[in-house]
Amino acid sequence: MISKTMKEIVANSSAIRAMFEEGQRLALIHGAGRVYDFSLGNPNVAPPEAIRRAIINIAESEDPVFLHGYMANAGYPDTRRAVAESINRRYATNFGEDNIIMTVGAAGAINIALKTLLDPGDEVIVFAPFFGEYRWYVRNFGGELVIVPNASEDFQPDLNGLERVLSPRTRAVIINSPNNPSGAVYSEETLKALAGILEDWQKKTGNAVYLISDEPYREIVYDGAIIPYVTKYYKNTFVAYSYSKALSLPGERIGYLAVPPEMDGYAEIWPALAAANRILGFVNSPSLFQRVAAVCADAVVDTSVYAENRDILYNSLVDMGYDCFKPQGAFYLFPKTPIPDDAAFCEAAKQYRLLIVAGRAFGVPGHFRAAFCVKRETVLNSLESFKAAIGQYR
Amino acid sequence: MISKTMKEIVANSSAIRAMFEEGQRLALIHGAGRVYDFSLGNPNVAPPEAIRRAIINIAESEDPVFLHGYMANAGYPDTRRAVAESINRRYATNFGEDNIIMTVGAAGAINIALKTLLDPGDEVIVFAPFFGEYRWYVRNFGGELVIVPNASEDFQPDLNGLERVLSPRTRAVIINSPNNPSGAVYSEETLKALAGILEDWQKKTGNAVYLISDEPYREIVYDGAIIPYVTKYYKNTFVAYSYSKALSLPGERIGYLAVPPEMDGYAEIWPALAAANRILGFVNSPSLFQRVAAVCADAVVDTSVYAENRDILYNSLVDMGYDCFKPQGAFYLFPKTPIPDDAAFCEAAKQYRLLIVAGRAFGVPGHFRAAFCVKRETVLNSLESFKAAIGQYR
Repeated sequence: MISKTMKEIVANSSAIRAMFEEGQRLALIHGAGRVYDFSLGNPNVAPPEAIRRAIINIAESEDPVFLHGYMANAGYPDTRRAVAESINRRYATNFGEDNIIMTVGAAGAINIALKTLLDPGDEVIVFAPFFGEYRWYVRNFGGELVIVPNASEDFQPDLNGLERVLSPRTRAVIINSPNNPSGAVYSEETLKALAGILEDWQKKTGNAVYLISDEPYREIVYDGAIIPYVTKYYKNTFVAYSYSKALSLPGERIGYLAVPPEMDGYAEIWPALAAANRILGFVNSPSLFQRVAAVCADAVVDTSVYAENRDILYNSLVDMGYDCFKPQGAFYLFPKTPIPDDAAFCEAAKQYRLLIVAGRAFGVPGHFRAAFCVKRETVLNSLESFKAAIGQYR
Repeated sequence: MISKTMKEIVANSSAIRAMFEEGQRLALIHGAGRVYDFSLGNPNVAPPEAIRRAIINIAESEDPVFLHGYMANAGYPDTRRAVAESINRRYATNFGEDNIIMTVGAAGAINIALKTLLDPGDEVIVFAPFFGEYRWYVRNFGGELVIVPNASEDFQPDLNGLERVLSPRTRAVIINSPNNPSGAVYSEETLKALAGILEDWQKKTGNAVYLISDEPYREIVYDGAIIPYVTKYYKNTFVAYSYSKALSLPGERIGYLAVPPEMDGYAEIWPALAAANRILGFVNSPSLFQRVAAVCADAVVDTSVYAENRDILYNSLVDMGYDCFKPQGAFYLFPKTPIPDDAAFCEAAKQYRLLIVAGRAFGVPGHFRAAFCVKRETVLNSLESFKAAIGQYR
């Protein structure tokens, strides 16, 4: 009774979501405290108190007809200005209200960018490991996902691999730093080299290639890691941002797409993005949270909680014998599985009430992802299970 | 620089939105009080005070990690139960939490239903006049919109026309009662006859045909008009609902899709809808407003304001010589234009600072739509302009 497209999607449906739902099932059997759910990037650090105050203050003081009403599909102009100014302050960019379109999270931002760019058969390049949902986002518009395999222990993008897959049908490249699932941060050198390759390609072929920089983890970094602002290195860059992680608001679906004024085709692209927001059914980013984001544009959750979780889990897993890259940002660990079959390992881990996601969901088999944005006690109590999970293969 | 698909969409972009933006431009020149903007269904009646209280109370009392976090893609189970129970109380239906998926407004609800149903080339039937966005929603998934022309003065669906266009490729029929733009309400007899035709067709061909009933105006009715609950007449019915109009919350993007348990293919359709919510980039309906909707599921704005606006505008326009159907619901008037060219009439009306939308945007040229969900003073002050607009053709 459902479309062929959806049959395939449901059959291959999100391994992450499947684990999340398995976790809820196991919690009913064993009690929530005895299930160690590392499946989903659902932040467990409270939003800044400023969020609660902003919600209450806005609800008490603003005219509700204006507050909950329609606005331009791009969002409230003053919200867009506040967001632009916050980015300008922090990264010395030059954005105005017509460079920020408020969206239904980063997922909404990426989808309106792809809707604007893609005709059926166009190609979009990603670097493994990558957030598995990109697969479906590209497919939403008849595009083809082209995967550059991972080629390094530290999960930097394989730029030689990029050169091999660029084609006349390439319309966009998606990057995600800090990276989900690996926690890698792309350095300034990497971004410069990436930009150089794309510039050369554009010059040689006359085809514009757009970079979509998916940055929900921009503020979640460790050991003083720096996240360069990508539009400064490559002008044909869309920045897809979400307040889901920096403000712990994933359920509210609030984010934006930044579109630099110097982008090739800006004049044509800007109105198309607003139209895409409308016709894809988003219409606009939720209005109350646009007002909240304007007030709290510079706020960030207490990331030290994630830093400590990272240290505990990383050090413990390495001690146990897991082979693991130390994340520089985001809130995921992406260790090698002790056996080659990552799906079998994740399945076996369930007997220890441990919910983790197989690396193949991110284009890198032989690894698993553990989201450590959980309660401290979950991290601590889970260690016996991680030990048992690797121990069975000794 | 943009896709062929988006070029066409931007070129034909929403006449409604274009008028809304023209109104904002004229307001800067003439002052907002001297521009009569009837372009957009943006409610001017305040949300019930219960909304403000619910927002503040929920923000003050609920755990913010839970309140603003991810939940199942279908929405919070308790919200879905509260919504189901509210519908059951009012319409004697038999819905549970697994029959309600919370969505990003009715636009989100229609899009996830179409994503679930359509393969490229599948046909979706609408009755003119119809909400113009259906055109793009169907196109989002490669579907073909099939329009049954209007055949009656009172804008009832042409069921003979339906029988003529049903084809082996028909996957869905969209209806919208109370209707935007006409204000017509489809009677119980009409719905029974419509259901009969679809049942016969299904029996004859073995093809399931789904009805999508788009009902954001269900509560906005006049003179005691009754809106039958469509799932009772045809089991293969999705009800797409939004709180945009009944609670004056269009900017918040909160609504749901109701999916009756007896629907053909329910077991396959239900998980596909949740997956569609995810992969289209909605992920879930905004979380705080899910909690608000649960508390306020039975609330409705003061519709007497709309009833009075309707009476003033309808009576005045008829007195001036406009040929106009009296709306039974929603908040639009859909009169004939005094000249055949509706686009020319709407363009000419701008000189009287009157913003109305040409009927061709809704599949019925020779009419215009005036959204009377505006301030009373706008209705009263606009009357001279409506008079001048028809007067120029005397």
